[in-house]
Amino acid sequence: MPYYIGDVIQGKEKLVARTPERFREGGIEVLIQTPVTRIDTEAAAVGLANGETVGYDILAIGTGTLPIMPGIPGQDLEGVFVVKSLNDAIRIKAWIEERQVRKAAIIGAGFIGMEMAENLRHRHIETTIINRGNLPVTRWDPVFCERAQEVLDRNGVVTLKETDTRNIERGSDDRLHLDTTAGELTVDLLILAIGVKPDVRLAAAAGIPLGKSGAIQVDFSQKTSLENVYAAGDCCEVFNRVSKRWVHIPLGDIANKQGRVAGRNIGGTPILFPGVVAAQSFRLFDLEMAATGIDEREATLAGYHPASIIIWGNALAGSMPGNSSVGIKLIADRSTGRLLGAQAIGGHGAVSRINTLSCALWAGLGLDEVAYLDLAYAPPFSPSWDPIHVAAQNLLKKL
Amino acid sequence: MPYYIGDVIQGKEKLVARTPERFREGGIEVLIQTPVTRIDTEAAAVGLANGETVGYDILAIGTGTLPIMPGIPGQDLEGVFVVKSLNDAIRIKAWIEERQVRKAAIIGAGFIGMEMAENLRHRHIETTIINRGNLPVTRWDPVFCERAQEVLDRNGVVTLKETDTRNIERGSDDRLHLDTTAGELTVDLLILAIGVKPDVRLAAAAGIPLGKSGAIQVDFSQKTSLENVYAAGDCCEVFNRVSKRWVHIPLGDIANKQGRVAGRNIGGTPILFPGVVAAQSFRLFDLEMAATGIDEREATLAGYHPASIIIWGNALAGSMPGNSSVGIKLIADRSTGRLLGAQAIGGHGAVSRINTLSCALWAGLGLDEVAYLDLAYAPPFSPSWDPIHVAAQNLLKKL
Repeated sequence: MPYYIGDVIQGKEKLVARTPERFREGGIEVLIQTPVTRIDTEAAAVGLANGETVGYDILAIGTGTLPIMPGIPGQDLEGVFVVKSLNDAIRIKAWIEERQVRKAAIIGAGFIGMEMAENLRHRHIETTIINRGNLPVTRWDPVFCERAQEVLDRNGVVTLKETDTRNIERGSDDRLHLDTTAGELTVDLLILAIGVKPDVRLAAAAGIPLGKSGAIQVDFSQKTSLENVYAAGDCCEVFNRVSKRWVHIPLGDIANKQGRVAGRNIGGTPILFPGVVAAQSFRLFDLEMAATGIDEREATLAGYHPASIIIWGNALAGSMPGNSSVGIKLIADRSTGRLLGAQAIGGHGAVSRINTLSCALWAGLGLDEVAYLDLAYAPPFSPSWDPIHVAAQNLLKKL
Repeated sequence: MPYYIGDVIQGKEKLVARTPERFREGGIEVLIQTPVTRIDTEAAAVGLANGETVGYDILAIGTGTLPIMPGIPGQDLEGVFVVKSLNDAIRIKAWIEERQVRKAAIIGAGFIGMEMAENLRHRHIETTIINRGNLPVTRWDPVFCERAQEVLDRNGVVTLKETDTRNIERGSDDRLHLDTTAGELTVDLLILAIGVKPDVRLAAAAGIPLGKSGAIQVDFSQKTSLENVYAAGDCCEVFNRVSKRWVHIPLGDIANKQGRVAGRNIGGTPILFPGVVAAQSFRLFDLEMAATGIDEREATLAGYHPASIIIWGNALAGSMPGNSSVGIKLIADRSTGRLLGAQAIGGHGAVSRINTLSCALWAGLGLDEVAYLDLAYAPPFSPSWDPIHVAAQNLLKKL
């Protein structure tokens, strides 16, 4: 059963090995906590940190990402954490408990920063987000970002907008003193959640080509430019079916799919990875946020002529108890009428609608089809004209 | 704001005219509670029950459905109701209150019977469903129907299986006495929820052709075989994109879409109705049931070679609170690998998955694509491999 960082912070521990181990499972030799130091593609072998060399017939690279460090003096101090691995979450949790953390700050206002803020608030920790920009989660339209900001405000998360952190110091009080452009801040815990970059150190050193995104270049079988080297997951690129570009989208479900595709090709039951539409979601307290496809900027870069609309509708039929408002943004191409992207926000029903629209993007549907999609209507689940229909019909008028 | 039958039973009243009225609204003359008795296509006029004749340039027929009556002696007694219109719901509610109904029976175990049972139980009325068959809601696989039966049982709804009602009488106690093949039953209220048929009486009398389904034949612009006569909603057929057949599916969202299409074509901004995939859902107490596309029987009739699978998965990521099990059935064509239908059941997350799969059916996706669809994964909303993926991957192995 998989565990998630939020779970760990909330109290569900998992034993994660911290020392090198070597064991066989299902006929496979497994080495954990054993860094690879070098890939030698000529000799078809990898060098391990323990000095050993392991030869390979086929190599699969799944090195994932590295957290982006802000380069702030003091960023390596005790009490400053990144959120990259399960071990990071375990360390953060241990720190919270050992130090009886009462006050925390998060640098970065992306969705990982949001998820951390929610989990810290659930532990009743005073939490401040330090945002270099003006609004959080800028993948979404500013109208939706403002709703996310309101949810943060309402849940007692303090946000410092347009704020840089210049210095981090451990004070004589054994707490972290942050010098920011918005003033001094003293916390017991600082989380760096600025983003991640593909960990291509081994691949690049071995001369395995990278794509424009900086991640490892792969084909639809997850093979690199070398016949016997595959890559999968957050370290490599993925094909975006909407923009028709190879991009870097480090998300767990995509990594899972790429791993399966690589495994099937290596194992002899070939399959091509059909690509992604960049569907994504997260929960912020009682708010669902989800997006898929591309936005106006990406659409223009990809050669489309985008038009867009935002509408607000009811998640459920008008008279239903527990109803809530859902906002939907659609982006479509003026020339072809094709759907290019969608964003949704709401108390519930935002993610489910983005999933439906992700399938529409996957299949390359036009807005005229989205406007009449046959959905499983019943009053407890949607209005008879779903907000998806209303958004598509209204955007059609603008094309 | 639309009202629903369940709302009315639960107490939200709406004023519905019971006498003929004539008024103008938005430049349109409206006559309500004014039956049409005759369509004269030669003269291009309709005759009204009040003796008037109204000429037309273009006629739109939206006569909806008629409840199917079981033909049981006593079915017209006071206290016996069908559930066809809002007025029926208002009458049922008034009856419940005036007669202080303590005990009710429902003949029929389709989804309308289910919704009525739920609403009656919410009013603490002892409720018995009289089912001619063995399981309720037979659009779904028997495995899922059994779950629905369990939910009925758990919520105190008594079910008489494989039971026919032979006679209904009003006893000297002023209650309804039902003579069934499972014994005598005394109730204060009897609801007939056997199903509906298209109300084509006027159209048929006027010689407007009907389709094989018995509903009015229309083309993709909602036009009947007469140049100036349109039909929309439950009285007419609709094109099923999966079976490629014209069928009768009396559901509110389809009727809405057809009405809009007819209106646009009559109004001079033409549009074709792209058809449906037969998506449908309802809630039964704490259970969501949803289905889309066609089942094995319909697939075989349509010339496909169906294979199917049922899997059970988690609605949310494994470790999430409030998780629940979701069952998914997929039906696909052995020859082409194309998805043909889907059914889902669960505490939550069943309807949303059927909506995604409805879009996949709409677009004619193959199982190989459904198996790797890019969905908006986050632990609070789904596992990283959604049950949709798992079902598709497992069914692929059976093709």
